[in-house]
Amino acid sequence: MIYAGVDVGGMSIKCCLATEEGKILVKDSFKTAEKITCAEMAEETSRFLMTLADRAGIKAEEIAAVGMGTPGTVDGKKGVIVYSNNIRLEHAPIVKEMKKWMTCPVYVENDANVAALGEAAFGAAKGLSDVVLVTLGTGVGTGIIANGRMITGKGGTGAEGGHSVIRMRGEKCTCGNRGCFEAYASATALMRQTTVAAEKHPDSLLAKLLKERGISGLIPFDAAKAGDRTGMTVVSNYVNYVAVGLAGIVNIFRPDVVLIGGGVSNQGDYFIKRVSRKLNRIVFGAGINPRVKVKAAELRNDAGLLGAVALAMRGANA
Amino acid sequence: MIYAGVDVGGMSIKCCLATEEGKILVKDSFKTAEKITCAEMAEETSRFLMTLADRAGIKAEEIAAVGMGTPGTVDGKKGVIVYSNNIRLEHAPIVKEMKKWMTCPVYVENDANVAALGEAAFGAAKGLSDVVLVTLGTGVGTGIIANGRMITGKGGTGAEGGHSVIRMRGEKCTCGNRGCFEAYASATALMRQTTVAAEKHPDSLLAKLLKERGISGLIPFDAAKAGDRTGMTVVSNYVNYVAVGLAGIVNIFRPDVVLIGGGVSNQGDYFIKRVSRKLNRIVFGAGINPRVKVKAAELRNDAGLLGAVALAMRGANA
Repeated sequence: MIYAGVDVGGMSIKCCLATEEGKILVKDSFKTAEKITCAEMAEETSRFLMTLADRAGIKAEEIAAVGMGTPGTVDGKKGVIVYSNNIRLEHAPIVKEMKKWMTCPVYVENDANVAALGEAAFGAAKGLSDVVLVTLGTGVGTGIIANGRMITGKGGTGAEGGHSVIRMRGEKCTCGNRGCFEAYASATALMRQTTVAAEKHPDSLLAKLLKERGISGLIPFDAAKAGDRTGMTVVSNYVNYVAVGLAGIVNIFRPDVVLIGGGVSNQGDYFIKRVSRKLNRIVFGAGINPRVKVKAAELRNDAGLLGAVALAMRGANA
Repeated sequence: MIYAGVDVGGMSIKCCLATEEGKILVKDSFKTAEKITCAEMAEETSRFLMTLADRAGIKAEEIAAVGMGTPGTVDGKKGVIVYSNNIRLEHAPIVKEMKKWMTCPVYVENDANVAALGEAAFGAAKGLSDVVLVTLGTGVGTGIIANGRMITGKGGTGAEGGHSVIRMRGEKCTCGNRGCFEAYASATALMRQTTVAAEKHPDSLLAKLLKERGISGLIPFDAAKAGDRTGMTVVSNYVNYVAVGLAGIVNIFRPDVVLIGGGVSNQGDYFIKRVSRKLNRIVFGAGINPRVKVKAAELRNDAGLLGAVALAMRGANA
């Protein structure tokens, strides 16, 4: 069986065709107009999928189902993108519009949830029924699978674990509140913490690297690995924030595995091991309950696409 | 059909027989030895259920199933009380032991989860599939139902929403960490906040009431309702803590309803409305997503018993 995966972003839409083993046969993306309507998005995506099928030598009818991951609040049951800051659609009946072009079933869910589904189908949580995926990027996204089912909340408004307050009256968050997990644990927050530390310690290697290369989430890690004390402090504090926020989610779900995705997870073991150590020290029942497994997410750049494929498969086989 | 509910506490065990409409036919409790073994607990509970059946004029065979709620970590799938601080049992195969005395199926789950099940079957969340129950008592307990299923975590170690950190480096918590939701929102925390406020404002009505009546969670509410500024500040801060902790859970689950149980919920609308107002201001997507419903739990003293009855029913009809 062939499934189509669609990963909707703010500037472009990625599409792929893949097998049920998660092998991508063909993938490509197209740019979208800044103000795209739901009908236009559906038509353009469907046409693009047809060209992909052509390129892969597959007939359109061979696509068993389409899965779509989109940012924001998605009501998967209704097939509607309720609200998205990034793609500027509101109450968009994307599944209904897609069905005007596609003969197979179409499914849509929030992209962070879909990514967790992908990791459970093809990635670092393969075959597991209880998975927490936290993506440390511009913001902090969470995708949660409990008892084999996505936690989406009513109308798809849930799974926003990045906005749990970990420090009341703390840093301002993009959501309007203060002290959210996201305001401390996103890559954006890490860059802010790095800049502040560089100003405080202008003679540190961290400050030097920052001046040479410009800001990025790599700076504190590179400085820390070279033994720079300022770098080590920034990393250690950041690990602490990540672990504290994660602990709140882990205490509720106690999943088979916690996966960390997003750019910061490229730091690999150096970062993952530190988070795991801290998390297992502060999680409820530490020392009594089994240790929590922490791993880097595996699907990386294809997480959205393969998650969408997993969504299509799940829908088609439900 | 008749179901038995068993609510295991540190000092005593409450039992009841009830109909599938949640009507309690008979209920009573018995005291337990401080160091009771699992086998003893099973035998005493079973015998007590027999005497209750006698008193209600019911044959033992008419009991369709037994549900048990116990504090601590409970592995419902295995029927084992893994760990409980309160009843001092570890790895206790309570279902296996109960089955030596009972011919019907026996189920066990954590008491906070069971209470949520009870509210969803017979109480304030009747008929709803997505429920968050937070119990503000000595600690902060959470019972969560998502998509009609209890969130228990692997091996029953989850659903510990009281230990999400809401203020890093904040108040000490019983779990060993600092700044947990429980350390700010339990009735114990409210009493501590009241005592501190009374010391700071010895001329307040709150301080006067505290001196006259001794400490309790009622003092700040009584003072606030009488217009005392210190009382109002304590209540307002406490409401804030409750709402901030709840928001973290609500952002993930977006349930049909949030229920508040425990002694503090006896304050009724005065308290619930304030929590609801604050929560709906800080929850993710406030103003875009539908409002979160907040209600007082309804089953009160019978929450544990009727939750256990609901567990028995669910198990028997699964």
